[in-house]
Amino acid sequence: MLKMLLLKSLSGEKIERFPVWLMRQAGRYMPQYRELRAKEKDFLSFCKNVELAVKVSLLPLELLDVDAVIIFSDILVPLEPMGINVRFEEGEGPHLEWDGNVKALRKITSKDTEFINEIIREVKRTQDRVPVIGFCGAPWTLFAYAVEGKGKADFKRAKLFMWERREEYLEFLGLLSENLVEYLKGQVKAGADLVQVFDSWLMHMPYEDLKEYAILLKAFFERLKRELGVPVIYFYRGSGEYLKLLRHVPVDAFSVDWTVDMFSWMEKEDMAFQGNMDPSILYCTEDVIQRKVLEFLKRVPRKTKYVFNLGHGLSPDMELKKVKLLVDTVKGYKVG
Amino acid sequence: MLKMLLLKSLSGEKIERFPVWLMRQAGRYMPQYRELRAKEKDFLSFCKNVELAVKVSLLPLELLDVDAVIIFSDILVPLEPMGINVRFEEGEGPHLEWDGNVKALRKITSKDTEFINEIIREVKRTQDRVPVIGFCGAPWTLFAYAVEGKGKADFKRAKLFMWERREEYLEFLGLLSENLVEYLKGQVKAGADLVQVFDSWLMHMPYEDLKEYAILLKAFFERLKRELGVPVIYFYRGSGEYLKLLRHVPVDAFSVDWTVDMFSWMEKEDMAFQGNMDPSILYCTEDVIQRKVLEFLKRVPRKTKYVFNLGHGLSPDMELKKVKLLVDTVKGYKVG
Repeated sequence: MLKMLLLKSLSGEKIERFPVWLMRQAGRYMPQYRELRAKEKDFLSFCKNVELAVKVSLLPLELLDVDAVIIFSDILVPLEPMGINVRFEEGEGPHLEWDGNVKALRKITSKDTEFINEIIREVKRTQDRVPVIGFCGAPWTLFAYAVEGKGKADFKRAKLFMWERREEYLEFLGLLSENLVEYLKGQVKAGADLVQVFDSWLMHMPYEDLKEYAILLKAFFERLKRELGVPVIYFYRGSGEYLKLLRHVPVDAFSVDWTVDMFSWMEKEDMAFQGNMDPSILYCTEDVIQRKVLEFLKRVPRKTKYVFNLGHGLSPDMELKKVKLLVDTVKGYKVG
Repeated sequence: MLKMLLLKSLSGEKIERFPVWLMRQAGRYMPQYRELRAKEKDFLSFCKNVELAVKVSLLPLELLDVDAVIIFSDILVPLEPMGINVRFEEGEGPHLEWDGNVKALRKITSKDTEFINEIIREVKRTQDRVPVIGFCGAPWTLFAYAVEGKGKADFKRAKLFMWERREEYLEFLGLLSENLVEYLKGQVKAGADLVQVFDSWLMHMPYEDLKEYAILLKAFFERLKRELGVPVIYFYRGSGEYLKLLRHVPVDAFSVDWTVDMFSWMEKEDMAFQGNMDPSILYCTEDVIQRKVLEFLKRVPRKTKYVFNLGHGLSPDMELKKVKLLVDTVKGYKVG
């Protein structure tokens, strides 16, 4: 029964404890990850090496005993077959090259990234204890990456594109939506038990522009709901006020960061949540980590659909021992 | 009568058009600023050079014909006499050195930064067309600068300090509050017609911690209201949801960024606002700038107390010509 704990929590069934997994749970903070990572110089080649990606995906299950495995990959993967050049410089993050021509961007099918599906099949074949999470980036975040060309950006270019080349902006987001549906369909067909859509850069979108984007997202998630048949989690970074617009988007849970007044939303709306806790607590001493996690969990109202996670991914300078303590503390807390 | 336009708008009197000034309106984007800036190598020496600081403060009045002059200075200025070493590396921003000992931090009076008061007196003496804005950083933002030690930070240290050294955190914020009251009292005595408090880093504060901070801010602003006798504007970067807690803080206006749903707050609450527009519009073509500014102004509900500004300061790569167009567009719009 443990296998389905995360899915039970999302569907509102009675649970004994909250399920827990962490974004970037397989990452540089783990010595075992760094060891595997050293086997491929280039990051994208590492992602495409099915054997290594499977091993890495499974590390958090072995080392942390989390309640879900998320496949190891990168949100930029589907941009490559669309015709955008993606490369990773060591220690610098992604560099993207795109000529700005939306018309030339390609429609993709899940066959274009077959290695992703192979990773999922293999992860499913290797273990059946916990659900496997497939994922993709959200249209805005991928659009912004393509236009900005890098990870550390001021979003000036992305905003200018959105404001001055409105038709092309909408066309790009429309194509991304279609491609991401195909991409996720492939993942579900390969065995993903649920999917998460990452809008890591939503906090840079002005509220006024979010009004239009939220409508587009609604259509995107309606289509996912119709075509995937598995739960969908929408992760975004940014304001709790954005939920006024996003709450109409049909997802199974909103994964939010620490700036969001999640407990109030839980009290007043029938919405399911994931995350919310500030990842920086992992820099605290062990007793503070335990105390803050327990205080946090006590505040989740009864009957609320909730999945424990942090508001953002783990960082390379975090300690595996403390991450394990965090997971164990969540698992040790009994839902009243 | 034009002199008091900004003050009239803040007090809810009838105005013909919205007042406008811009954060960092005197800055590197102006060739005339760069010329004056070249006269002092070190940035803090530049801030302390009363003659140059006065000239720089007045540049936007000459070149943009804005409705307020904000004195040219830096929010880190009062940290130095408190016992924190502040220096600016060329092109790198501030570096602060502090040993973490809150007990050793000093109480200051406005005499410790007399050059600030001199700048204000001189700006007032030179012109009486528009009000002069004094300013300071907010307690959280200055605390975070002191703890992080630099401008580009991940706020890990500041959060850890806040969570693990709670007594010292509250003591530091208490001392900052007292010192900032003295600092602003000196500025008002010297002639400042209103003041603005900058919480440039509030977006990094978790919502849960904001609950306590908002109480501290309330006491701080109550004291400013009582002791200053001039309008106070509170600028913060971050979520519109934060206003649920901040709205109880007694300020004359909230200066907000582009992620805030300001128009809804204007409709439902009797709150005064400043800002909200995304500074990135200044990278657009001139017709887009004009169109977006007019669309924006049309949405301000009648009788709302509002001061035009951007959601953040101007950047060095902006064009003076476009900044002037922005100001002129606001000034040309008649309040219906």
